[in-house]
Amino acid sequence: MASHFAPTDPVDLTARLVRCASVTPEEGGALQLLDRLLSDAGFACTRVDRNGIANLYARWGDKGAARSFGFNGHTDVVPVGDAEAWTTDPFGAQISDGQLWGRGATDMKSGVAAFAAAAIDFVRQTPPDGAVIFAITGDEEGDARDGTRALLDWMKTEGEAMSVCLVGEPTCPETMGDMIKIGRRGSLSAWITLTGVQGHSAYPHRACNPLPAMARLADRLSSHTLDKGTDHFDPSTLAVVTIDTGNPTTNVIPESTRMTVNIRYNDAHSGDSLTEWLQAEMDNVCETFGVRGAMQVKNSGESFLTPPGPLSDLIASAVEAETGVTPVLSTSGGTSDARFVKDHCPVVEFGLVGQTMHQVDERVEVAQIEQLKAIYARILKDYFA
Amino acid sequence: MASHFAPTDPVDLTARLVRCASVTPEEGGALQLLDRLLSDAGFACTRVDRNGIANLYARWGDKGAARSFGFNGHTDVVPVGDAEAWTTDPFGAQISDGQLWGRGATDMKSGVAAFAAAAIDFVRQTPPDGAVIFAITGDEEGDARDGTRALLDWMKTEGEAMSVCLVGEPTCPETMGDMIKIGRRGSLSAWITLTGVQGHSAYPHRACNPLPAMARLADRLSSHTLDKGTDHFDPSTLAVVTIDTGNPTTNVIPESTRMTVNIRYNDAHSGDSLTEWLQAEMDNVCETFGVRGAMQVKNSGESFLTPPGPLSDLIASAVEAETGVTPVLSTSGGTSDARFVKDHCPVVEFGLVGQTMHQVDERVEVAQIEQLKAIYARILKDYFA
Ligand SMILES: [Zn+2]
Ligand SMILES: [Zn+2]
Repeated sequence: MASHFAPTDPVDLTARLVRCASVTPEEGGALQLLDRLLSDAGFACTRVDRNGIANLYARWGDKGAARSFGFNGHTDVVPVGDAEAWTTDPFGAQISDGQLWGRGATDMKSGVAAFAAAAIDFVRQTPPDGAVIFAITGDEEGDARDGTRALLDWMKTEGEAMSVCLVGEPTCPETMGDMIKIGRRGSLSAWITLTGVQGHSAYPHRACNPLPAMARLADRLSSHTLDKGTDHFDPSTLAVVTIDTGNPTTNVIPESTRMTVNIRYNDAHSGDSLTEWLQAEMDNVCETFGVRGAMQVKNSGESFLTPPGPLSDLIASAVEAETGVTPVLSTSGGTSDARFVKDHCPVVEFGLVGQTMHQVDERVEVAQIEQLKAIYARILKDYFA
Repeated sequence: MASHFAPTDPVDLTARLVRCASVTPEEGGALQLLDRLLSDAGFACTRVDRNGIANLYARWGDKGAARSFGFNGHTDVVPVGDAEAWTTDPFGAQISDGQLWGRGATDMKSGVAAFAAAAIDFVRQTPPDGAVIFAITGDEEGDARDGTRALLDWMKTEGEAMSVCLVGEPTCPETMGDMIKIGRRGSLSAWITLTGVQGHSAYPHRACNPLPAMARLADRLSSHTLDKGTDHFDPSTLAVVTIDTGNPTTNVIPESTRMTVNIRYNDAHSGDSLTEWLQAEMDNVCETFGVRGAMQVKNSGESFLTPPGPLSDLIASAVEAETGVTPVLSTSGGTSDARFVKDHCPVVEFGLVGQTMHQVDERVEVAQIEQLKAIYARILKDYFA
């Protein structure tokens, strides 16, 4: 049997996906291509579109399987930016110097292709006792309201479930295999306005300047140690990103001033606890200085963690076996759709080196796509062993 | 003799001056009118124009007189602003409801007219043993580079001198006679820029945010007690008038931020001592936070004081005799040309109530002009007694 088997080429599949111009929110043919390919390999495919966003759910194996390994990723890409600045056609998928060039080459059509190729070969060669699931969205780079969330909502309604999930975003900062992500910090922004009473610089006692209060608040927030890091997270950080007043006149005391702070926070905090803290600090300076305060908060995502355990062990050992590199378990970086998946099952992220993602001349080493397929194949084999 | 004497009408003279549209730097006929009037009364008049600015010097009595009483004022006025918003023609000098309406009615054509009327009557009725001097400029409201300074420069060259000088600006905040100004605070502005290294909010350790340093600096400057006031001055004050960064993005740490501070200072400080202090405070936060600082300073005028003594006693007793009000000796408020005169002789400021100065519908009570003339007349009589 094995001698008749022609393995699926992840590089060719990456190239075919890159040639689909799937800039968010355009489907661009990318999910249709995967749909045909996975259907041919015996996957049950369902388009789970919502509000004009295309998403694809695919399952090999039984719906009620005791063990199911899920893969989450996206086929949408960010815009090409300055098309003139590219060395190659951004949707040409040209291969030269051992690299495949194009928008989405690293983020993350190669990741989707590597997992699809690994999964198709795996279910053909050694059909597992369980299910292999794809949850692929066409909106990760945009608002992400109707992307992975739509898939997870639909799965819940339909009784579809993943026992564990691997998100295939690029995770390695330098070398193939050097980092697995087991969580992410949360991100919260606050817009604070302090208002006093305008007046003349020569008569400050008749005015109430909001700037000394803002300076005190900014100093207190900046000087505060939110925490010293937790078991799996770096210390939380706060950045005062702007203070603006817009008063052009030296002899006028301004009525109001505005500040924006951004907090990247670990599992010692929540959006609510930080909002409460900011409010208390603001109220405190308002009372001290006799000014009025107003605050708007946007919490872009709570921090989350899949504590080191069977899933991260499984992935780390596969990475080490294929690359010789021992991956760091990290919670650094920005947000990803793992923040939605974590409410449904253990989730870990692993993918290739993302150095050129979102840039002009985005490209990926062809050998790295092959290696990623091998890692993903080993993960599937070990999971169902 | 006294029965033939027709006193000079200060209200009519104010009206004639208001009808000269002498918006800085236009002479508008105002100094020509004074020149004719004073020449007719026996004053030696000289136009001391410089760089297109008209100024008038007039002396009754001998050049080398042992005692000379000087008067400093201006005939230029600020623009009318929204002409449509005026109740009357701003250059019409209409009298109604006991008020004279028009631009310059309080600041300070009535002051010039009251002193001219008092001085003309005085030298005619009781020729003094000494000199009476007018130093009237056409540029007090503008740059003031070629106004009173040009007159004082010319006087020095020509050997002309005043023993004492009265500046006739409006000085009373509420009631005729309630305030004499014996000095002014200094005013200094500083523009400070702090520069760090731009970066991403998620990786603050790779950036160097200048905002915490600016917040600390603004807090330190605002919290500092410059002094608790001196014998004749209120405490010095510092106002942070603006902080601006202009960073629209919550995930970016800005490279630089700017602040402007304005200091109103008394005789415990000088422009140099304050500049040194600001520089030291800025250097201090730069060292603490590892940012770079740059500062520009503009010192608009040092503080000065004519200590209470014969001149202020003379004026206060004349005010009290004519109004029944005991004037406060104050050093409050903004700058005036007294800051130039103080380098030449003792100088004190006294004039009427300035509530409508620089506003639409500037106006003055006719009775107040009469009263001001009477006060100035008594000052001259007492000075030469
Ligand atoms: Zn991505
Ligand atoms: Zn004036």
